[in-house]
Amino acid sequence: MKEENGIEELWREVRDLSLGNGGRVERLESPPTPVQFLRDFITPNKPCIISNAITHWPALSSWTNPSHLSQSLSGATVSVHLTPTGAADALAPLRSSLCFASAHVQRVPFPHALDLISFSEPSKLVAYAQQQNDCFRSEYSSLADDCDPHFGWATEAIGSEPEAVNLWIGNQHSRTSFHKDHYENLYAVVTGEKHFLLLPPTDVHRLYIRDYPAATYSYSSDTGEFDLELEKPTRYVPWCSVDPYPSLETMDNEMTKFPLYFNGPRPFECTVKAGEVLYLPSMWFHHVRQGVDDGGLTIAVNYWYDMQFDIKYAYFNFLQSIRYRSAPSAMISDKLSEEIDSDSDDYEH
Amino acid sequence: MKEENGIEELWREVRDLSLGNGGRVERLESPPTPVQFLRDFITPNKPCIISNAITHWPALSSWTNPSHLSQSLSGATVSVHLTPTGAADALAPLRSSLCFASAHVQRVPFPHALDLISFSEPSKLVAYAQQQNDCFRSEYSSLADDCDPHFGWATEAIGSEPEAVNLWIGNQHSRTSFHKDHYENLYAVVTGEKHFLLLPPTDVHRLYIRDYPAATYSYSSDTGEFDLELEKPTRYVPWCSVDPYPSLETMDNEMTKFPLYFNGPRPFECTVKAGEVLYLPSMWFHHVRQGVDDGGLTIAVNYWYDMQFDIKYAYFNFLQSIRYRSAPSAMISDKLSEEIDSDSDDYEH
Repeated sequence: MKEENGIEELWREVRDLSLGNGGRVERLESPPTPVQFLRDFITPNKPCIISNAITHWPALSSWTNPSHLSQSLSGATVSVHLTPTGAADALAPLRSSLCFASAHVQRVPFPHALDLISFSEPSKLVAYAQQQNDCFRSEYSSLADDCDPHFGWATEAIGSEPEAVNLWIGNQHSRTSFHKDHYENLYAVVTGEKHFLLLPPTDVHRLYIRDYPAATYSYSSDTGEFDLELEKPTRYVPWCSVDPYPSLETMDNEMTKFPLYFNGPRPFECTVKAGEVLYLPSMWFHHVRQGVDDGGLTIAVNYWYDMQFDIKYAYFNFLQSIRYRSAPSAMISDKLSEEIDSDSDDYEH
Repeated sequence: MKEENGIEELWREVRDLSLGNGGRVERLESPPTPVQFLRDFITPNKPCIISNAITHWPALSSWTNPSHLSQSLSGATVSVHLTPTGAADALAPLRSSLCFASAHVQRVPFPHALDLISFSEPSKLVAYAQQQNDCFRSEYSSLADDCDPHFGWATEAIGSEPEAVNLWIGNQHSRTSFHKDHYENLYAVVTGEKHFLLLPPTDVHRLYIRDYPAATYSYSSDTGEFDLELEKPTRYVPWCSVDPYPSLETMDNEMTKFPLYFNGPRPFECTVKAGEVLYLPSMWFHHVRQGVDDGGLTIAVNYWYDMQFDIKYAYFNFLQSIRYRSAPSAMISDKLSEEIDSDSDDYEH
């Protein structure tokens, strides 16, 4: 009981002390100096939205024209993530239980990727051009001059250039389920807008992180059908269980299963518009949806800077190690576990 | 049991991640830039010793001459802390139990203070000129030109000038028991040397913080005797129970009472010499002894900068709220508690 009170007090105190209780992300009218960025945001692990940091990027005007992009990238092969719903790296139903489903990743000529994204149709096929492996500097190198290679003030603050720069081209169907990254993230929206739900690392128990068996979509362009298959040997992925936007039919059930999320403090909600940059601090949980520009696209570039694995990280690991109502691993339904057991003798846990 | 393992893992991880396991405090050959200071020390809450930050201070040469000090401060009245042992703000035996004993504070002309310090004799009277209320800028204002008013690189990093600047003039008998401060502390040693034991905030349970009844020494110059009296109404002060240097006779008993301290990871140990500056991060537990210069004195000036009450502070409070072997308040002996109960009807807890 003592720890329970302590954890709830921690949620409250983190909001009280440095984040504010309004659930509002602080906005800066211009980029901070390196010292301000360190002192006011990186050190306290606090997000902000920065205006006027990328207004000089050629991308801001030229990328609103899909044919310009197709022309620039006419010779490029890019990775496109295909799913039936727009939700990749997300929980998906499988044999009356849930698994952690990854997209079918296909490398295609860029103009074809753009067609797939533009003509996506939910419950059939949704395409999202993205690959979180520094793809902007590899697959999309011909766009290099359209954006800055890094943010000078962030690079000076953090003491090194970005570890990875990723490009994201999607539509209104793509969404990213709650997760956290071990990077300091500067997320620049170029066209359309991104809707973020943000929760500080101290809220870890509210997301009911549990081990789910990994599965991957495979897509047949002949039949236009997706298959979702468990990896073999079975691999478990710890993932957040909470869908913050359940359907009307599942709402009651979800709210009963995840009361710490639905009855606790509201997430910080923010919309990052074209031309704005979100500082998404390391270890913050985030859920992302997007709205499109006139051409039907949402395009963003994010810069992952190495985080410091310091006392904050150690505190987080300690907090996470404490069982608090939602016991880890308890959610994999017995039913699916049994199926896995009978499917495979050599799965790893 | 689960939390116990987690807390021990936290001690280990904090050392592994950013402090190093050698128990050594990092040394810088010159002051860091504001960005380096924030990134490499304030953000990770990590101490360091800085050389060549105060070599230009006139104090470094002029304060080694006590008569120069007496002359400069001939008209000044200063606060001097008198105790029988050199230990103020420390636990002291009282009626077969322990209390938190504060010094007898007396305001005297500076030359008299210097005599008291120079002729201190343990078990009779030990004097320590200090007052942690910005005394360097008030009582000692005539010395202002001998030191810099602040450290430019720290002030720029932290975003404000020091909240308080304190002067400490003592001898080899004065020591400060384990405690923490809610400030970022830059501790400049001018003459003699300071020996620090440092423990990160995550080690809080290893210091067995318990509530002790507050008491104050009173000193009669007529008899040359100290009296130690409990405050009325009773006030309890949470204080670290561990004396890291127990006498040979009490050693076994102390090690049995405080196994988490004596059997756990060793504290970071460092000596800060005349001309060096210690960055003592906010919330770090520290114990201080000192060695004297040729004139028999140890003189230091410390700069207290406001700390950020941010996610690290919230994590600390959460950690401290967890009971872990050493239950808070359990140590006030029943015997003393009974005496207090019968002494006073209106004590506050």
